[in-house]
Amino acid sequence: MSVITVGTMAFDAIETPFGKTNKIVGGSALYAAYAASYFVKPVQQLSIIGYDFPEEELGSLEERGVQLEGVEKVADKKSFFWSGRYHEDMNSRDTLVTDLNVLADFDPKVPDSYQGAEFLMLGNLMPKIQISVIEQLKQKPKLVVLDTMNFWMETALPDLEVVLKKVDLLMVNDSEARQLTQQHSLIKAAKKIREMGPKYLIIKKGENGALLFYEEKVFFAPAFPLEDVFDPTGAGDTFAGGFIGYLAKTNDISFQNMKKAIIAGSALASFCVEKFGNTRLRELTKEELNDRIRLFKELTHFETELSL
Amino acid sequence: MSVITVGTMAFDAIETPFGKTNKIVGGSALYAAYAASYFVKPVQQLSIIGYDFPEEELGSLEERGVQLEGVEKVADKKSFFWSGRYHEDMNSRDTLVTDLNVLADFDPKVPDSYQGAEFLMLGNLMPKIQISVIEQLKQKPKLVVLDTMNFWMETALPDLEVVLKKVDLLMVNDSEARQLTQQHSLIKAAKKIREMGPKYLIIKKGENGALLFYEEKVFFAPAFPLEDVFDPTGAGDTFAGGFIGYLAKTNDISFQNMKKAIIAGSALASFCVEKFGNTRLRELTKEELNDRIRLFKELTHFETELSL
Repeated sequence: MSVITVGTMAFDAIETPFGKTNKIVGGSALYAAYAASYFVKPVQQLSIIGYDFPEEELGSLEERGVQLEGVEKVADKKSFFWSGRYHEDMNSRDTLVTDLNVLADFDPKVPDSYQGAEFLMLGNLMPKIQISVIEQLKQKPKLVVLDTMNFWMETALPDLEVVLKKVDLLMVNDSEARQLTQQHSLIKAAKKIREMGPKYLIIKKGENGALLFYEEKVFFAPAFPLEDVFDPTGAGDTFAGGFIGYLAKTNDISFQNMKKAIIAGSALASFCVEKFGNTRLRELTKEELNDRIRLFKELTHFETELSL
Repeated sequence: MSVITVGTMAFDAIETPFGKTNKIVGGSALYAAYAASYFVKPVQQLSIIGYDFPEEELGSLEERGVQLEGVEKVADKKSFFWSGRYHEDMNSRDTLVTDLNVLADFDPKVPDSYQGAEFLMLGNLMPKIQISVIEQLKQKPKLVVLDTMNFWMETALPDLEVVLKKVDLLMVNDSEARQLTQQHSLIKAAKKIREMGPKYLIIKKGENGALLFYEEKVFFAPAFPLEDVFDPTGAGDTFAGGFIGYLAKTNDISFQNMKKAIIAGSALASFCVEKFGNTRLRELTKEELNDRIRLFKELTHFETELSL
């Protein structure tokens, strides 16, 4: 199975209570591709970069089975740049700089070689771009997953409503789910969102885990209890990439298998936050990933026969 | 096995976004006793009430196997009264009225008939009172569980530190764990708290579930995803009572069994919040409880063999 991952490949400069980086590589599609490539090949990247994006990073992605034909390289512009500072609680952050650079011109063209992909991960982007990618695909993928954010709810809601009708699964955080539906109860918000289009919904709650909704069913996965979240940048995109990568590898979009995919994504995300940027993802071994998934089981499983 | 539950029996007047009550019965030991009595008899209540506490409620507790010999009845004073208003998010509330009444004189005497109890639930009270109860017991219980709150951290920390050395398990919410240890990371906070005395620690996170810590092990139980939390009053005490009641019924304080006890307590608490006060707890059937525990399993269990 193949997965198309659409989103940014960028530079980030990050400050957390634990330290500070200069410009390091980042972007939603970068994290998603690293994560998905743990499980499946090929990952077909759809993104845009400037002349300054490091060749070494592109090589590392290709080695992992990430195809870059759909990554447009603009010769006379810089890559998208974001700089931010996380607060003590790591759940909120201030944006210090946003330089769109090449991103202002992003109008992705799906290469012929990507046609027929069974899985599509639409990273957080302007909804019009997400619609354009869906419409370029000659064959509807088995599963289309959408990430978005509050900014698009505020500035492009009609477009967002269109894209919601075209996707199978929406992935948002709890405050975004509340904002999109004007419902405080996440259960009510989930119902309303599924009436807007997506059959499946994942609500991410940061250090409080994630909920998957489908029909009348709910699954809850905790975040891994880490001593320190060193840098949360990219955790959501890593989760998304791991989730869709696992589904693609197993070619099974049943609710039961989505539970496993959420654990796979959560495990990868728990590594991502242990170091700055994608450092930890690049060095991660299959054995470490296996061990952590085992810990996830120990964390939540209980013997189910209670004496009442 | 028998359980001693120490705490308040009181009147509450509650406002939530869903409605408003006049004075209804409440108090930490009331909720804990209702919950514990689902699992074990006798529950031995240690509390204080005024002349105005309803006989009917006392009868209902006795029918459930709650012994009231340790409940002091003051003939010329009113019962403790608390009134509060919950905010939209149900995680924060304003206290409108606190009339201590009989609680100002609470100096519990453990009746002879309670001696030998194997389990002790110390509800949230002035630490000096909690110490006094522990010291009156001629035989150390198998498990002593302590609930406390930020107020005592601010006004009676030295006493609280003494009681922490005398208990086996502390139960606090996430902000209290952080306040007690000055650590934002709950994993670091948990380490520090266990250095202060208790071998076991439960950190409650409201709608985000609860964590159990013991040695190097962690267990996470989600809160049940309810469409609406109607009235959160008593949820924490119901959780505590259900937890210790289940341990007492099974007479097993292994980590594996504590996981089950947390699920039992969480299931009871999820009913408690569905209606005002103890209404839902009074009418709850064993079948409903069983069904909900089954839903807890469906909520968190995944097939553990992932294909990596």
